[in-house]
Amino acid sequence: MAHSIGVIGGGQLARMMVPPAVHLGFDLRVLAEAEGTSARLAATAVGDHHDARAVLDFARDVDVVTFDHEHVPQEVLRALVEAGVAVHPSPGALAVAQDKIVMRERLTALGLPVPQWAAVHDSAELGAFLEGHGGRAVVKTPRGGYDGKGVRVVRAADEADDWFAVVAEHGADAVLLVEELVEFRRELSQLVARRPSGEIAAWPLVETVQRDGVCAEVTAPAPGASDALVREAEAIARSVAEQLEVTGVLAVELFETADGRLLINELAMRPHNTGHWTIDGAVTSQFEQHLRAVLDLPLGETTAHRPWSVMVNVLGGPSEGTMGERLAALMADQPGAKVHDYGKDPRPGRKVGHVTTTGDDLDDVTARARAAVRFFEG
Amino acid sequence: MAHSIGVIGGGQLARMMVPPAVHLGFDLRVLAEAEGTSARLAATAVGDHHDARAVLDFARDVDVVTFDHEHVPQEVLRALVEAGVAVHPSPGALAVAQDKIVMRERLTALGLPVPQWAAVHDSAELGAFLEGHGGRAVVKTPRGGYDGKGVRVVRAADEADDWFAVVAEHGADAVLLVEELVEFRRELSQLVARRPSGEIAAWPLVETVQRDGVCAEVTAPAPGASDALVREAEAIARSVAEQLEVTGVLAVELFETADGRLLINELAMRPHNTGHWTIDGAVTSQFEQHLRAVLDLPLGETTAHRPWSVMVNVLGGPSEGTMGERLAALMADQPGAKVHDYGKDPRPGRKVGHVTTTGDDLDDVTARARAAVRFFEG
Repeated sequence: MAHSIGVIGGGQLARMMVPPAVHLGFDLRVLAEAEGTSARLAATAVGDHHDARAVLDFARDVDVVTFDHEHVPQEVLRALVEAGVAVHPSPGALAVAQDKIVMRERLTALGLPVPQWAAVHDSAELGAFLEGHGGRAVVKTPRGGYDGKGVRVVRAADEADDWFAVVAEHGADAVLLVEELVEFRRELSQLVARRPSGEIAAWPLVETVQRDGVCAEVTAPAPGASDALVREAEAIARSVAEQLEVTGVLAVELFETADGRLLINELAMRPHNTGHWTIDGAVTSQFEQHLRAVLDLPLGETTAHRPWSVMVNVLGGPSEGTMGERLAALMADQPGAKVHDYGKDPRPGRKVGHVTTTGDDLDDVTARARAAVRFFEG
Repeated sequence: MAHSIGVIGGGQLARMMVPPAVHLGFDLRVLAEAEGTSARLAATAVGDHHDARAVLDFARDVDVVTFDHEHVPQEVLRALVEAGVAVHPSPGALAVAQDKIVMRERLTALGLPVPQWAAVHDSAELGAFLEGHGGRAVVKTPRGGYDGKGVRVVRAADEADDWFAVVAEHGADAVLLVEELVEFRRELSQLVARRPSGEIAAWPLVETVQRDGVCAEVTAPAPGASDALVREAEAIARSVAEQLEVTGVLAVELFETADGRLLINELAMRPHNTGHWTIDGAVTSQFEQHLRAVLDLPLGETTAHRPWSVMVNVLGGPSEGTMGERLAALMADQPGAKVHDYGKDPRPGRKVGHVTTTGDDLDDVTARARAAVRFFEG
């Protein structure tokens, strides 16, 4: 019998698990939200991940269940575990990734470096936090945010009233997360993978550039990072993975502050946009590693093939026609570019693909990746 | 509309086209011989490739038809072309790969270097050839041979009588190919890809080691090859591709003779075992390149990631259980090994997978690939 993995969610992360599953001889099955999702090739069922019965039916005969996203409700996750299904990452670990206030509480309790934060229930509490932090702060909805959604910079106590109204509809626990607006030099991301038996593997620390709250570009390794910084980032990510008992890939998004400290911005417990470069740039990609980790197989080497890798997202995609129609021109211009088309309809701001380039000279590698992606714009 | 490719045949070559199709957003469809073939994930039809109706039905709405093997009869290929289907490589090019006597005739006419050969109709003609070539020769069935099947070293005129009897059953054209037994220093393989509009890309020349007529190990690049040898091999392969108008990947298997000449041993017009290392070892794999080429898209960079890549085949597979059951031990021992499991049942001598390693030190890279494959033996 082949190792079998059930993935809940049919987005591009599930899609990009298909190639390593094909190579390693794994049986990958996807529970997709709808027909025609990005991971349609491996979709063996269509169903709602809020529906415990649909998820249990899907999970019945796989070795392990894992995820394309972090939106499966805890009660569904718990039902899987009670039914004897191996679930990685576990519901307990996922709970921390699903709620930003729970995450801040846990990280704070573990002594890990996070921005100053508070859970606020109304504009008065938000006003008090603003007063203590120079009149500026970041407000986040604890749940459901992604790619810049549910994140807002505020400069006055009433600038989150609409969100307070929305969370109030969800009952007594009407609360928002507020954080200091960190003055950062740049954003970094440390990816690691951990398997249930405890082994951890780390990829090189990378620099990420966000635009409108969405990952736009990743450079691996992070240029000019000191050995001390690299060690600290890896130590933080290892500590999160171990102490929260994360299984599979864990992405720790970090701020490098103006005064040289690292602060944890976000966590993701799945393959992550800041690790897409590993498909073409590292001996073991984050997608292969995630499958190995959740199956509790030994982890693969994370060395980069070349000194530099740059990944640029295709955000939105062509205003007319498809990415496929632009391929010929791109390939003629950039024969070394590795193109990834998620098979999704173009839509402003939507992540519809990415391009990775590798090589010895960072300026050249960056220029080639950017040039390639421009063929998908306009 | 996504680019769509129909592949006739559901073996491991079709299977290994799936990952690049997923990444590039191509719609890959496979016409498989049976349920449960190696390429089952992409199989959209099951049918006999000798059945023109089944093949035409399959080919109706794809952009191009290509192949997992070279066994589709010419009349079926011609029916596709007459129906307006784009077929790459073309029937005319494939005819040369399908019949070893046709191949020898064409290569000889083009002035390309081949072993001395003859088409022989009976043991008397074979005896005459043996007499002129030191009493030893290689006899090959013109059609249907692969992986050492249909190839025999003979030392007496009557040692091919059984084969003459078999080919005689197939009618008037009862003929065998006989060739001089080349004293070679080693075997090499030059892979190139050519697209219909003429562009050609070449990968580094590789050394191959055959065991019982089956590819066992490939080293890229060929150790110690002089610049002149590398240039000559590439020139030969480019010449074959251009003059036979091959489209897609072309493998030219070569003998490097004891006196330093190159002679063409075999041709294959599809991704080839001697190019499997490119999946993990080169910027563009032979499988991605084949899809690009048959779609007439610009070809990708063929540079190797690291100084050395070694590919070792898994021949036969475990005597008990599955490759999957051996993975944990292999991965613990060889974290840098890239494992490819074709999802086929183990059987003595059968190609059921391969392992590739890459790195800076050839001895180390070779030792790691061999060590990994040993986990699938016994």
